[in-house]
Amino acid sequence: MNLDYIIPNEWSIIQEGFVKENVTASESIFSIGNGAMGQRANFEENYSGDTFQGSYIGGIYYPDKTRVGWWKNGYPEYFAKVLNAPNWIGINVNIKGIFLDLNKCKVSNYKRELNMKEGVLTRSFTAELQNGNQVKVNAVRFLSLDFDEIGAIKYDITSINFTGEIEFIPYVDAGIMNEDANYDEFFWEILQIEEEKNEAYILSKTLKTEFHVSTGMKISFALNDDKIILDSEVEKSEKKIAFKYKTEVKQGDTFTIIKYGGYTQSMNHAKEDLISSSKKTLQKVANIGFDDLLLKQKESWKKIWKTADIVIEGDIKAQQAIRFNIFQLNQTYLGEDSRLNIGPKGFTGEKYGGSTYWDTEAYCIPFYMSTKDKNVAKNLLLYRYNQLDKAIENAEKLGFKNGAALYPMVTMNGEECHNEWEITFEEIHRNGAMIYAIYNYVNYTGDNSYIPEFGMEVMIAVSRFWQQRATYSEPKEKYVILGVTGPNEYENNVNNNFYTNYLAKWCMEYTLENLNLLKEKYKDDFDRIIDKTKLNQLELDQWKTIAEKMHFPYSEKYNVYLQQDGFLDKELILVKELPKSERPINQKWSWDRILRSVNIKQADVLQGIYFFENRFKIDEITDHFNFYEPFTVHESSLSPCVHSILAAKIEKIDKAYEMYLRTARLDLDDYNSEVHEGLHITSMAGTWLSIVQGFGGMRNFDGVLSFAPQIPKEWKSYSFKINFRGTTLKVHKSHDGSKFTNESETPIEIMVHGKKVVVSSNECVAL
Amino acid sequence: MNLDYIIPNEWSIIQEGFVKENVTASESIFSIGNGAMGQRANFEENYSGDTFQGSYIGGIYYPDKTRVGWWKNGYPEYFAKVLNAPNWIGINVNIKGIFLDLNKCKVSNYKRELNMKEGVLTRSFTAELQNGNQVKVNAVRFLSLDFDEIGAIKYDITSINFTGEIEFIPYVDAGIMNEDANYDEFFWEILQIEEEKNEAYILSKTLKTEFHVSTGMKISFALNDDKIILDSEVEKSEKKIAFKYKTEVKQGDTFTIIKYGGYTQSMNHAKEDLISSSKKTLQKVANIGFDDLLLKQKESWKKIWKTADIVIEGDIKAQQAIRFNIFQLNQTYLGEDSRLNIGPKGFTGEKYGGSTYWDTEAYCIPFYMSTKDKNVAKNLLLYRYNQLDKAIENAEKLGFKNGAALYPMVTMNGEECHNEWEITFEEIHRNGAMIYAIYNYVNYTGDNSYIPEFGMEVMIAVSRFWQQRATYSEPKEKYVILGVTGPNEYENNVNNNFYTNYLAKWCMEYTLENLNLLKEKYKDDFDRIIDKTKLNQLELDQWKTIAEKMHFPYSEKYNVYLQQDGFLDKELILVKELPKSERPINQKWSWDRILRSVNIKQADVLQGIYFFENRFKIDEITDHFNFYEPFTVHESSLSPCVHSILAAKIEKIDKAYEMYLRTARLDLDDYNSEVHEGLHITSMAGTWLSIVQGFGGMRNFDGVLSFAPQIPKEWKSYSFKINFRGTTLKVHKSHDGSKFTNESETPIEIMVHGKKVVVSSNECVAL
Repeated sequence: MNLDYIIPNEWSIIQEGFVKENVTASESIFSIGNGAMGQRANFEENYSGDTFQGSYIGGIYYPDKTRVGWWKNGYPEYFAKVLNAPNWIGINVNIKGIFLDLNKCKVSNYKRELNMKEGVLTRSFTAELQNGNQVKVNAVRFLSLDFDEIGAIKYDITSINFTGEIEFIPYVDAGIMNEDANYDEFFWEILQIEEEKNEAYILSKTLKTEFHVSTGMKISFALNDDKIILDSEVEKSEKKIAFKYKTEVKQGDTFTIIKYGGYTQSMNHAKEDLISSSKKTLQKVANIGFDDLLLKQKESWKKIWKTADIVIEGDIKAQQAIRFNIFQLNQTYLGEDSRLNIGPKGFTGEKYGGSTYWDTEAYCIPFYMSTKDKNVAKNLLLYRYNQLDKAIENAEKLGFKNGAALYPMVTMNGEECHNEWEITFEEIHRNGAMIYAIYNYVNYTGDNSYIPEFGMEVMIAVSRFWQQRATYSEPKEKYVILGVTGPNEYENNVNNNFYTNYLAKWCMEYTLENLNLLKEKYKDDFDRIIDKTKLNQLELDQWKTIAEKMHFPYSEKYNVYLQQDGFLDKELILVKELPKSERPINQKWSWDRILRSVNIKQADVLQGIYFFENRFKIDEITDHFNFYEPFTVHESSLSPCVHSILAAKIEKIDKAYEMYLRTARLDLDDYNSEVHEGLHITSMAGTWLSIVQGFGGMRNFDGVLSFAPQIPKEWKSYSFKINFRGTTLKVHKSHDGSKFTNESETPIEIMVHGKKVVVSSNECVAL
Repeated sequence: MNLDYIIPNEWSIIQEGFVKENVTASESIFSIGNGAMGQRANFEENYSGDTFQGSYIGGIYYPDKTRVGWWKNGYPEYFAKVLNAPNWIGINVNIKGIFLDLNKCKVSNYKRELNMKEGVLTRSFTAELQNGNQVKVNAVRFLSLDFDEIGAIKYDITSINFTGEIEFIPYVDAGIMNEDANYDEFFWEILQIEEEKNEAYILSKTLKTEFHVSTGMKISFALNDDKIILDSEVEKSEKKIAFKYKTEVKQGDTFTIIKYGGYTQSMNHAKEDLISSSKKTLQKVANIGFDDLLLKQKESWKKIWKTADIVIEGDIKAQQAIRFNIFQLNQTYLGEDSRLNIGPKGFTGEKYGGSTYWDTEAYCIPFYMSTKDKNVAKNLLLYRYNQLDKAIENAEKLGFKNGAALYPMVTMNGEECHNEWEITFEEIHRNGAMIYAIYNYVNYTGDNSYIPEFGMEVMIAVSRFWQQRATYSEPKEKYVILGVTGPNEYENNVNNNFYTNYLAKWCMEYTLENLNLLKEKYKDDFDRIIDKTKLNQLELDQWKTIAEKMHFPYSEKYNVYLQQDGFLDKELILVKELPKSERPINQKWSWDRILRSVNIKQADVLQGIYFFENRFKIDEITDHFNFYEPFTVHESSLSPCVHSILAAKIEKIDKAYEMYLRTARLDLDDYNSEVHEGLHITSMAGTWLSIVQGFGGMRNFDGVLSFAPQIPKEWKSYSFKINFRGTTLKVHKSHDGSKFTNESETPIEIMVHGKKVVVSSNECVAL
């Protein structure tokens, strides 16, 4: 189904009317997060209908024992999974003896709004209970950007037609299980439950990984906005603690509960201080108070939007969509902690379990680099630098030697988690993305110290991997890379995937080039690195030889590089020739048929051309796009953005717009009928790229920042901002032309449609 | 470890001395069976050490829910598994209050013997219990060939040094679980437990498949060989029934229990009659009595050996091994029931779960065809004929149309069970083996009615599959078969596997050829088949075109067909160049490394050359053998036999002998440290082939039976017999020459080393 219930709005995601079938989808879409933690938009009060309860803490994972049908040598023992954490948002409500449950009562005036400008979720409705009593509920919730260990809830309940007792039962429930546990195991051990007046804490630790977490709550009340004090009854079980508070209300009275809650955890605190830290933090925010905390929240989101916002005029759904994507990316990762990363589902679901994929390097880094301080992107690079030893271990497990590294396909702590041989062992192009991200970062930020300080060690280890992984083919008299899976996972175990071979060659060349640079300009670092890595001349010679003699399958007939050896042996059936009833092919065809077909899941050769566009002539780009796109089914969320960017490059603006639409509202319109599982967080960065690099034509090869703005005919105008080496540049494009505004004190030189333009400080240049 | 405890003996498998570590291995090796059922050589009395209890009934299976890490479209919902059936052999023994348990007492004079000539298992030992009491035990057990629903046990216990009470507790236990259940589920429902004096029955049914089985036992006793009558105490629980019988013994007394037991089941009886059938059968064998039943058993095995035996002089271990293989094959399948087949582990274990693989068609049929009546091989063919509808359904699930069939990789009832995409969907060469077996059968037996009556429908359905599976490659201007796995599973998802393409081409040609024959000579059948299959001329034309234009990768440099496209791009590292520490590679290398390597698990191109040897010149066979064998690690039990046969063909007799040794004692010497999981039943047929087709050089192309006997220098002589179109021919080979004895009334014309020889009835020709 396509969701059609999200009401278009510039700054908010809005749902009106209660439909049970949409509850789990909305739980994903209305998710909130603050970079350190996040949660699905579950109801505070109990809901007996279909729901997927989820709350997640950045960095906290569990090594879930691998489940496979047939074991293959080299498989990891476990899949590290984001952990569904204790629920602190719960507030059960009992009205004159009947529990409020939207699954069981008549609901009207239901409205949910996720205000993206301010980072706050509200929900209001009228409910008529089984006994005829009617209440109006208004619930406001947010996870604080300013105090990233806590969230706050203000839950108002108003009697519409009765006098009597209302009971609030706020609780902390540590008995939550992962939806996707391989063996239905419970991953937590409950260590301690502590309570005092209006406060409660559950200290738990994860099995095996021994992360310790204190989940706390602190409660206060008001009746018709006047603070009141209530006594509680405590209900405690093995994994849960609840308080019961009762008060009498008259018709028209509003009874309010304010609940602060959240997590303090052992990545940031000593284990023995967790409960006391919880207490202090909750006391602090309680002292600030709900309203002032919310004001701070609005201010903090304002700062984020100041550089990150994209404005689209003339298409409210596009406007809503791009802000939704930017908002969710910021909810997932704010870049302050190099131990964290961006999971494909962020804090909105459990699918794909692990946190970090090559999505981060290939798609997310440009977004964070352009919309935030350069340290954010640096932290993402350091995440991989800090896991280099594990990547070397991972390669050793697969038979590689001498400090070669293979970064994992999926990871939490640097160890490989994935367990499909064709991906785990063969989708090795990810290793190249690590180096591409370094290149991208240095090129964009001009931070030339990163490679000598950190990057080079990673580059050497990855180049060593490519050297060992490439072998010499006598018939071809070239180096070949056999048995790989490219980005197009609708093929696997192929030979000489163009993208993989190209990245491998480039990695070795780029490493050699930078080694020369270091030798010249960063001699101390160079010596330290040589000493540490025991790099020798023979290796360098091998890299050079292999890079020079790398094999690339090519078709003279079509003037294109082939995705892999033998690609043209397939039946060249275009996507448009496939019956609609057979799509999406990943649901309609058996796996072998998908593999045999010429149909491509996501950009593969084109992904390479996108990365290295400056090395291809415009005709070559056009030829490759025209050859591959018609075979591509775009059944990966990461596919349309790359195609959108390249289509814009070759001035197929309608195609670019078509592709943009497929990426922008993927979740809001639930194209793939899977939004209930969580959001496609990493592909949201691709949507941003579609505008900035696609329509905006922003490029940054060899330190030159360039633009080539175009605009789809469906829009009036659009504008975006980027941070570039200390300058904030606003780019505005309408059908009348482009405007470049320099919002900083330093002048900036850019290229627009191939011509040099200087934008002075605080000036606007219109073209 | 290599087992070194099996004592060489011409006719028996013998173990002396009790070693706990060998219990599970011996349970496999000493397994007994009668074609309808079989069991591991578990002890009758309870054993608290490491043991794998297993008893299996031919045809009784359970659809165990599929377990995979990542679901692929097209996977079957379940894996049909041989079912571990209720235990009827159990006899617990209590001596003056202490249970006899070899894990807990001092054991001496331990001896086990599996007498292959007579089909009987004996075990004797002296045990000193914890209280110092010593007993001598002698247990004799067999599964009757004459009454294939029952087995019999005679269990003697003699007091060596005490006077006192001995208790026998015979039982039936229906609470047995499969060792390899995917989700640790219990697959049976217990319906009824019935007992009367000295008899008990448990009626149970399998969940889902609803096979009903009555497991029964019937008991009698003797004291010092005199029949005695004892009263029993009954112990009944939900899934088990036991009787307790006590008697006083003096020093030197022998107390004997005779237990008949076994299964009657709903494939052969009405469900409601199962217990009464059990009773009748047990009554019948009890009337015959243990000793006479055993005499019958010996007679029946004598008949089997009369044609099946192979005699090797001068190498007792080789003699023991070949008889072991022939014995186990006969224990597994006797060919009387076309609903049964030959599982890779027979009745000796659960690994590979399903019953039927292409092993049957490629390896087992020649054995059964030559050592038994032709109806046995015909029954194996009919098994597939009867499952044709399911094979068509299976192909439909994968997107094939118009009555194309894909026979399953693993099956019990005709439905696919396997769930590894690279095998389930891609190891399609199995489909060709079905047709090869038909060809082989018709060619050997001269039964020309099989194809018109049954075979042609299968041939058409399989040819339709190949036609749809092959596609046209523009660059090659040939038909290609993409995305397959050959017999060498150390490669997968390859293009144009020589063996697969060759079989596909041959299948279509052979079908066309036979269609012409039918049209001419079996017009009624032809019309019936055309009508039923709706075969049309266009299809025939397509088969012809595809067969003519099939692509076969070839190397001009090495003068060999390549295993697949791009095979020579690999590093051509010979097996002898691999460090010993890295072998077996399936234990030492990660899966991707195995896939990338040139190393071959089992005969692939050579498997094709073996099947179609008459189409290759001797130089070609030599070139292919010399090219491929050095890359082959033979890590499949089905590999050495084919190599042994081809090595003999090209007169590399030492290599042939080396390969023979790897197949002959695979289980007895436990080369792969896995015999505890069960025996490699189907590869035992390969051992037989190594002698008859390898050293004996027996061939049968185009109806001509030929021989080219050679003998390894390590042997004095060997002889084997074959049934060929009503004639029994004995072939004897020593270093002095060959002798051919015709043991029947019809003269036979054969070729020996290329020269025609006529052997008259009941005559011996020495050459």
